[in-house]
Amino acid sequence: MARIAIDMDGVMADTTQQMIDWYTQRYGVEVDKATLYGLPEATGFPHDREVMRSFLFEPGFFRTKPVIKDSQEVIRALQDKHEVFIVSAAMEFPPSLGEKLEWLGEHFPFISWQNIVFCGSKSIVQADYMIDDHVKNLQPFKGQGLMFTAPHNVHVTDFRRVDTWQEVAGILL
Amino acid sequence: MARIAIDMDGVMADTTQQMIDWYTQRYGVEVDKATLYGLPEATGFPHDREVMRSFLFEPGFFRTKPVIKDSQEVIRALQDKHEVFIVSAAMEFPPSLGEKLEWLGEHFPFISWQNIVFCGSKSIVQADYMIDDHVKNLQPFKGQGLMFTAPHNVHVTDFRRVDTWQEVAGILL
Repeated sequence: MARIAIDMDGVMADTTQQMIDWYTQRYGVEVDKATLYGLPEATGFPHDREVMRSFLFEPGFFRTKPVIKDSQEVIRALQDKHEVFIVSAAMEFPPSLGEKLEWLGEHFPFISWQNIVFCGSKSIVQADYMIDDHVKNLQPFKGQGLMFTAPHNVHVTDFRRVDTWQEVAGILL
Repeated sequence: MARIAIDMDGVMADTTQQMIDWYTQRYGVEVDKATLYGLPEATGFPHDREVMRSFLFEPGFFRTKPVIKDSQEVIRALQDKHEVFIVSAAMEFPPSLGEKLEWLGEHFPFISWQNIVFCGSKSIVQADYMIDDHVKNLQPFKGQGLMFTAPHNVHVTDFRRVDTWQEVAGILL
């Protein structure tokens, strides 16, 4: 049995798709996901970064993100074999705290409150595996990092990469 | 430099005093703190435990707790010498999340969001020291635990005990 720390945004919740959807709804322009490859998160849209960052502070943004394919089934299966913690850097956006808890309750009702961590820096987290889409979280981690593919990290080569939850299942189940 | 994980309730925020104050206001009976020694937290009041637990779910309970003496000055000084994280088991009471963040912002504005952790189980926390009033948090901790004295833990002898923040300063500054 291993302890696995799983990030929410970009790993369980599809932040990129939510940004594209909200952008389309607000500005009438649908951005092609492929044009975002290799750019810092929340950039690459015709309007500048401030516009994108404003979404993060708007009610509903975190509450209504699409669920990333196969994450529910694989995380449920991981729980049978491992100790699973959801670890989200939610403190940067205080209004997101309640929305993230509600989102987890709706889409992952099988995860106990005992196993949810909302933090700022993830350097305090002790686990065997960390599944995350951000270099800043995987870099200080002492265990085995698994970089979950997101448009902003496609050129990073420092960590073992997983493109899908089926790949995670192949490694950890 | 050490990493220090500091609990909120019973360590920074005076939960016992808040319960006594709210109980007095609601039932007109002021309970003597000494009569609570050695009893499980939130018990020992004339009305039964359910009444006390209801306080924990009422708006304002976590937002208005008194600050424990000297905690502000000592934690600020600890920050100059160590890496300080506030680690609160807030997930058990979801409505407390926002109130706890606001309480920290009011009384400890010098603590960055990067260094705040709201969790369920604290077993995932990696630090050199943990200052906490609960056995369940100190027991699985791999570093040096410091039990902060609270009425419910006065008979516990398994951990090094600190009665005041001045004692913490004596050990860690």
